[in-house]
Amino acid sequence: MSLLVVGTVAFDSIQTPHGLVEEETGGSATFFSLAASAFAPVRLVAAVGTDFPRDRLALFDGRTIDTEGLDVVADGKTFRWSGKYEGDMNVAETLDTQLNVLATFSPKLPESYRSTPFVFLANAEPRVQLEVLDQTPDRRFAMTDTMNLWIEHERDALLEVLRRVDAVVMNDEEARSLTGERNLIRAGNKALELGPKVVVIKKGEHGAFLFSTYMFHALPAYPVTEVVDPTGAGDSFAGGLMGYLARAGRVSIGNLKRGMAYGTVAASFTVADFGTRSLRAATREDIEIRFNEFMNFLR
Amino acid sequence: MSLLVVGTVAFDSIQTPHGLVEEETGGSATFFSLAASAFAPVRLVAAVGTDFPRDRLALFDGRTIDTEGLDVVADGKTFRWSGKYEGDMNVAETLDTQLNVLATFSPKLPESYRSTPFVFLANAEPRVQLEVLDQTPDRRFAMTDTMNLWIEHERDALLEVLRRVDAVVMNDEEARSLTGERNLIRAGNKALELGPKVVVIKKGEHGAFLFSTYMFHALPAYPVTEVVDPTGAGDSFAGGLMGYLARAGRVSIGNLKRGMAYGTVAASFTVADFGTRSLRAATREDIEIRFNEFMNFLR
Repeated sequence: MSLLVVGTVAFDSIQTPHGLVEEETGGSATFFSLAASAFAPVRLVAAVGTDFPRDRLALFDGRTIDTEGLDVVADGKTFRWSGKYEGDMNVAETLDTQLNVLATFSPKLPESYRSTPFVFLANAEPRVQLEVLDQTPDRRFAMTDTMNLWIEHERDALLEVLRRVDAVVMNDEEARSLTGERNLIRAGNKALELGPKVVVIKKGEHGAFLFSTYMFHALPAYPVTEVVDPTGAGDSFAGGLMGYLARAGRVSIGNLKRGMAYGTVAASFTVADFGTRSLRAATREDIEIRFNEFMNFLR
Repeated sequence: MSLLVVGTVAFDSIQTPHGLVEEETGGSATFFSLAASAFAPVRLVAAVGTDFPRDRLALFDGRTIDTEGLDVVADGKTFRWSGKYEGDMNVAETLDTQLNVLATFSPKLPESYRSTPFVFLANAEPRVQLEVLDQTPDRRFAMTDTMNLWIEHERDALLEVLRRVDAVVMNDEEARSLTGERNLIRAGNKALELGPKVVVIKKGEHGAFLFSTYMFHALPAYPVTEVVDPTGAGDSFAGGLMGYLARAGRVSIGNLKRGMAYGTVAASFTVADFGTRSLRAATREDIEIRFNEFMNFLR
């Protein structure tokens, strides 16, 4: 089944102990689509400015990623993010954010996108996420991401999003901030009370937790020996997870668990090089080989 | 098969956000023995002072823990440790350490202990650990713990210990410090080069890794909703692991993995209350029930 992602296509400038890249093509929708398209056709919704070179879309060549929903805003400039990773590289220090076209982004889904069964709302202002939910009445499963900015400053709108989606994926700090619970197990269970039937908490190099009613699952991360650039790991994880669910066509506990493992594998490719380089180079076969290796580590 | 532990029996004074206890019976050999004796008979070697009330040994009543090796040092005072946990409670701040009888501890194993097949060297000065290895010529499997103090100041003696044991268990910071590798996967593999055939790295609430030649295993922690006092969690983990191996009587990859899961379960009981209270209260049946529940979380 097909899968819709609404998120960002961005220019990322990134410093890590391994080097520096400037204006790499990044953004949540980019990483998500690259990971998810290994499993299912992806429909992408995002906005860029006229400064976004069309040939950058070659990034998506050879994959089933529909970019009809990529809005090129007249006179607009593309979203830019600049960040730096140091020490254990678990957290990015944001050096600069230029919202540009995102400041007024109001997604209009192409007619052909509206009946997409699987929907992923990448981190965005809850107002934008609600507009997407309004335009996908036939969806079967929606998962949302979010960030501390909205948890703190747009809480009511975010709570409405959480009541309307089926699942939420957050990192550990976001889960703590959303629920006021320091303990992650309590935080996950409390997040379930806000509406979603499924709560996924990402812990970076420490893996991820899955919460659902009467059910808990813990998964370590894939053992990566060299993290070059963690940017996009979370969106790659979500892409692998949602991509696998869309391919399976059915959300079950078993599929959610396998999807988390595929998400973990996608993220493990992403962090191995700057930007999308390593994820892009990973073939479907590479993903399957690493998935099987990962399953062996856990048995 | 039986299991020998050489470690400490101590008075612990502990502050956590959940309260304060003074002069609780603690120490590595205490936690290890309580956890391991659920699986196999334990022979304990440690030293206390004449200030240690005999009736405190009631702690071990009803368990197969042989305390013939508990040396009551004439005119000596028992080792005391005082620490404080704050925030995420992953790391203890040591407020005070009084070595007392440990300063001159030189273990003399009772004759009946010398042929014990499974040996655990709890954290101690490497000199002491080497004395135990000299006195256990018939052992089949020895695992050692250590700490940053010895890694930094007694490196040569510690490296000799590592060459002579079969396995080492360390926390993440110790593994990094021992090997100079920040990445834990690299650190684990590098530790294997120092001699042990098995390297276990504990990551507290994030679980544990197991490294052996050609083999890697990752295990999350048991999802504890309230950590009251983490003191002794690491020694309880080692106790569950080594206790299970001693019961199985054979060290295999499968037994090491199951042992790590039992260690995780033992630690999950320990952290639920101050000192040994919760671990002591856990019956063999409680442990099996939680082990099965934990296995379900991972499947």
